[in-house]
Amino acid sequence: MRSYEVKNRTSTDDIKALRLITAIKTPYLPDGRFDLEAYDDLINMQIVQGVEGVIVGGTTGEGQLMSWDEHIMLIGHTVNCFGGSIKVIGNTGSNSTREAIHASEQGFAVGMHAALHINPYYGKTSLEGLISHFDCVLSMGPTIVYNVPTRTGQDIPPRVIHALAKSPNLAGVKECVGNDRVKQYTDNGIAVWSGNDDQCHDARWNYGAMGVISVTSNLIPGLMRELMFGGKYPSLNLKLMPLIEWLFHEPNPIGLNTALAQLGVARPVFRLPYVPLPRAKRVEFVNIVKEIGREYFVGDKEVEVLDDDDFILIGRY
Amino acid sequence: MRSYEVKNRTSTDDIKALRLITAIKTPYLPDGRFDLEAYDDLINMQIVQGVEGVIVGGTTGEGQLMSWDEHIMLIGHTVNCFGGSIKVIGNTGSNSTREAIHASEQGFAVGMHAALHINPYYGKTSLEGLISHFDCVLSMGPTIVYNVPTRTGQDIPPRVIHALAKSPNLAGVKECVGNDRVKQYTDNGIAVWSGNDDQCHDARWNYGAMGVISVTSNLIPGLMRELMFGGKYPSLNLKLMPLIEWLFHEPNPIGLNTALAQLGVARPVFRLPYVPLPRAKRVEFVNIVKEIGREYFVGDKEVEVLDDDDFILIGRY
Amino acid sequence: MRSYEVKNRTSTDDIKALRLITAIKTPYLPDGRFDLEAYDDLINMQIVQGVEGVIVGGTTGEGQLMSWDEHIMLIGHTVNCFGGSIKVIGNTGSNSTREAIHASEQGFAVGMHAALHINPYYGKTSLEGLISHFDCVLSMGPTIVYNVPTRTGQDIPPRVIHALAKSPNLAGVKECVGNDRVKQYTDNGIAVWSGNDDQCHDARWNYGAMGVISVTSNLIPGLMRELMFGGKYPSLNLKLMPLIEWLFHEPNPIGLNTALAQLGVARPVFRLPYVPLPRAKRVEFVNIVKEIGREYFVGDKEVEVLDDDDFILIGRY
Amino acid sequence: MRSYEVKNRTSTDDIKALRLITAIKTPYLPDGRFDLEAYDDLINMQIVQGVEGVIVGGTTGEGQLMSWDEHIMLIGHTVNCFGGSIKVIGNTGSNSTREAIHASEQGFAVGMHAALHINPYYGKTSLEGLISHFDCVLSMGPTIVYNVPTRTGQDIPPRVIHALAKSPNLAGVKECVGNDRVKQYTDNGIAVWSGNDDQCHDARWNYGAMGVISVTSNLIPGLMRELMFGGKYPSLNLKLMPLIEWLFHEPNPIGLNTALAQLGVARPVFRLPYVPLPRAKRVEFVNIVKEIGREYFVGDKEVEVLDDDDFILIGRY
Repeated sequence: MRSYEVKNRTSTDDIKALRLITAIKTPYLPDGRFDLEAYDDLINMQIVQGVEGVIVGGTTGEGQLMSWDEHIMLIGHTVNCFGGSIKVIGNTGSNSTREAIHASEQGFAVGMHAALHINPYYGKTSLEGLISHFDCVLSMGPTIVYNVPTRTGQDIPPRVIHALAKSPNLAGVKECVGNDRVKQYTDNGIAVWSGNDDQCHDARWNYGAMGVISVTSNLIPGLMRELMFGGKYPSLNLKLMPLIEWLFHEPNPIGLNTALAQLGVARPVFRLPYVPLPRAKRVEFVNIVKEIGREYFVGDKEVEVLDDDDFILIGRY
Repeated sequence: MRSYEVKNRTSTDDIKALRLITAIKTPYLPDGRFDLEAYDDLINMQIVQGVEGVIVGGTTGEGQLMSWDEHIMLIGHTVNCFGGSIKVIGNTGSNSTREAIHASEQGFAVGMHAALHINPYYGKTSLEGLISHFDCVLSMGPTIVYNVPTRTGQDIPPRVIHALAKSPNLAGVKECVGNDRVKQYTDNGIAVWSGNDDQCHDARWNYGAMGVISVTSNLIPGLMRELMFGGKYPSLNLKLMPLIEWLFHEPNPIGLNTALAQLGVARPVFRLPYVPLPRAKRVEFVNIVKEIGREYFVGDKEVEVLDDDDFILIGRY
Repeated sequence: MRSYEVKNRTSTDDIKALRLITAIKTPYLPDGRFDLEAYDDLINMQIVQGVEGVIVGGTTGEGQLMSWDEHIMLIGHTVNCFGGSIKVIGNTGSNSTREAIHASEQGFAVGMHAALHINPYYGKTSLEGLISHFDCVLSMGPTIVYNVPTRTGQDIPPRVIHALAKSPNLAGVKECVGNDRVKQYTDNGIAVWSGNDDQCHDARWNYGAMGVISVTSNLIPGLMRELMFGGKYPSLNLKLMPLIEWLFHEPNPIGLNTALAQLGVARPVFRLPYVPLPRAKRVEFVNIVKEIGREYFVGDKEVEVLDDDDFILIGRY
Repeated sequence: MRSYEVKNRTSTDDIKALRLITAIKTPYLPDGRFDLEAYDDLINMQIVQGVEGVIVGGTTGEGQLMSWDEHIMLIGHTVNCFGGSIKVIGNTGSNSTREAIHASEQGFAVGMHAALHINPYYGKTSLEGLISHFDCVLSMGPTIVYNVPTRTGQDIPPRVIHALAKSPNLAGVKECVGNDRVKQYTDNGIAVWSGNDDQCHDARWNYGAMGVISVTSNLIPGLMRELMFGGKYPSLNLKLMPLIEWLFHEPNPIGLNTALAQLGVARPVFRLPYVPLPRAKRVEFVNIVKEIGREYFVGDKEVEVLDDDDFILIGRY
């Protein structure tokens, strides 16, 4: 048996077949290091409830607050412990082409099944520069390109995606611009995952999306699975809207971090610049949980409001 | 003599007094490392033509493409060689609070006179998070806060700036939102530098700005000095508009990198994801130089169009 | 299934049971990066010929020339591709306690089965310091302590080993001081692997050693397996002596690197400060291979002398 | 003024002229980061008492426990604050040629006056490898080569030094092998600094050494200056022997770290693997200080024994 047969066990088509991918939360110890035991529990809950893939160190998982060695370690750890049960997609993108190349090489070397790549946020570049950037990493393995102009300051226009689609490694696009853009791609045979939980039901059932790369599924993986697998289900979609609105009231993952602490599945430790939602919002969350049903949420402790003093905010770690 | 007297030789008021600060270009060797000899020449030209400060490793200087050790080394190098002649402002900001803390400590330790701090781009945070982020670094020394929502995806609203202004270390704001916002601050005694070269003349003379943090001054430091020191000068301002429009046709520093290579003062080496402007644009630049006058631009070689093959694009460095 | 059951699949006793462990070579691409395809082939050859464990990034594997992120990536890669077939022991030791802690945490997180720990070479410390150093990492998982005073400048005396042996995680000692020292430990129930290929036969069969952590087994894994598994075999031992002497004529891994290039299983690329053996020594190696029999050596190309020009020496990578 | 005139303000001859160089201690805050205020005070005391140069981040300064960015920052900081009053020699050596190249480039870029380079400890190499290693860094600026086989496990033989002496950048050798070796070099016009405080008086006055790179001068800079500048002074030399013996009773800088804490000029914070000398030895130090005279030692607090609980030992920092 040659090792590369092991390594390349995931094809681009395997990635395209995923309907429900969670942008997994990274939980922390009180000193700011990764809490791998809590992390492993979170991943296990995802697997048990039918999630098919995880984004490791996405914006939700706070890859932007990791050193690269932490980031690659977390990818390797996830592959090592769970790679047989769930697809591991490493967010090895960067606004620095050098870093994107280096991290993607390392991520694939430690066994990740696919890479998520963002366009160069903040620094930005020309369309030619965008294509050059993605071309440097596309050859390495299955790749999802991520478009979120409200974070990056720059839209990836269809022209660029169509250029990249010539590569057999382009699995598809995580698209946050809206369902009309989704349709533009799915009409042309390009796989899309909705990057907006509030639009993902419609994206999946009305606009041809493969599924969703979800934040909300950190909390209610089973219900999100129903939304992506169970056929059109507008009543469930409607029922989840208050939760989704609550989650994105402040920039993600502020809401998610607060919620997972309240559910007792992650310590109430925040790496700055993230800070918890204020008390009033935490009370709201308890009500939302009761409305939907505690049993649909991860963990089995009672949901708590938590005091301001319960939270630990860390700048040096 | 106690060393901290040496270190703290620059007060916040010294920084506030600066009218013309250049966001200096970082030139590269063909293998992608810093070309320190070219860099030193660029800084010398700035000093000779009356520029009072430099931003080291700003977005223009491609701090986003540097490792932190490269970045701090460049700050230390600039202080060591030129710190007596020009104020050295290190862009030690980051979307990671940890990195901003670490880089700012190191930058002040190697002698930088002030820090430039951005809000957490891409990852973003709540307003409370923004204030917590800046509070972690403000205590270290004179600080300029940088607002450029088209890059960061998030405006720093006046409410946040007013909160930060309670610190004696806040030197002021580099503001890119426009001159109405500039006036909001200057009316309240907060120092502002325009971050938009096309608006800086009006910002300075009509809206109370202290001056400009400029990209264009990499090319024509003497003319930019006239614009900031010589009183209202609308005809000069108008004359420079074609150059400024050309420079920002694509995301900065693509235009600047292309121009400095054409002027023969930096090697035509690009760190990806930046790529040079296309040939047609390079021809345009030659004409713009002739229109304004070669003698106003840095360097003394003839301005060239350059062939596509003259450029080296580097992903691994 | 809880993830930690997966992670802790290797007990200290599993490690103690290993007879033949190879300190595996790290091969390079012409630009100095890891040549993972060649590496995978090398590991496969080890597995096929009965080697039971590998030291990743040992002194033989030039861990001292790796950045830590390269090093952890290589451990994670090896676990990911081969962890089911061979025990992966990461050399996560360092003369800096901080680095040893950090690397060991990361190495176990990505699935290594055991750690190899050296005493603080070059910097050295007191015996109390030695114990404090090892105590920081022993709690993390199965651990082999490595004593090689000719490299470290400081012997780890039995007193220290006996103190560490109170931890259930101490798998044993890789000992290079000689077989009398080996016996001191094996008489007291402490597992030992010989760190000297020329002494390992006697260590195993006359002094109670568990086996060997071998350099030579990179070249002749099958014969080394016979030496460790086949009972006393002095004639084979004698037959291998010229090879072993040749290998250690200059500081390891200079000989090994030269030999593997000559056998055509690794590119002739050296990271400085290592340089190939001179031509006369390379001729000698060809003769040694013929004497022992090419079929016992890894690879299937003809063994070559190689010209000086065939070698690439790299300082920046 | 061209910047490189500023940068290259120190010639190799300037370095050769130094008689008393201190391998300066790095003091720490309770969380393990550098205590730059204490450091600055230490350097000031050195300057005031006539020391002419410092080794930054030597083995005494625990460069082996620093990340490279910390190390370069400390060099840049020292140049920035004290570069006009004392020569700053950065220990930018490494057993990895890549690291030695990178650190030396950065160190000279931030203004260090000379580099100290060790041979590749622990990993070791052939004599040809040694020469290749040093050749990679010698071209960058004035260089002192450091030979200390009891730490590195490998002597740098005269043959290698003579080969390196062809470079105009070789300032000389810090030699720890003994005064006969010193004489071998000084007879041939190669500058030598003794690396052994107990031999430095004789090295200087009987064996032709330029002076000393001293540990003891951290404690008694004025007396060490007398020893190097005042002509033969055997009675002073003899008087200092008990202190020097005490200092090197355990591997340096264990004694020095303990002593500086007892003198109240550095916090009693140790980065592992270093731990303080035991109480009995600390009592001895108090007596030694009284014997020589408190006024000759740095600081002005009373010398204390300190309790075991006063010391903070740190593994993660």
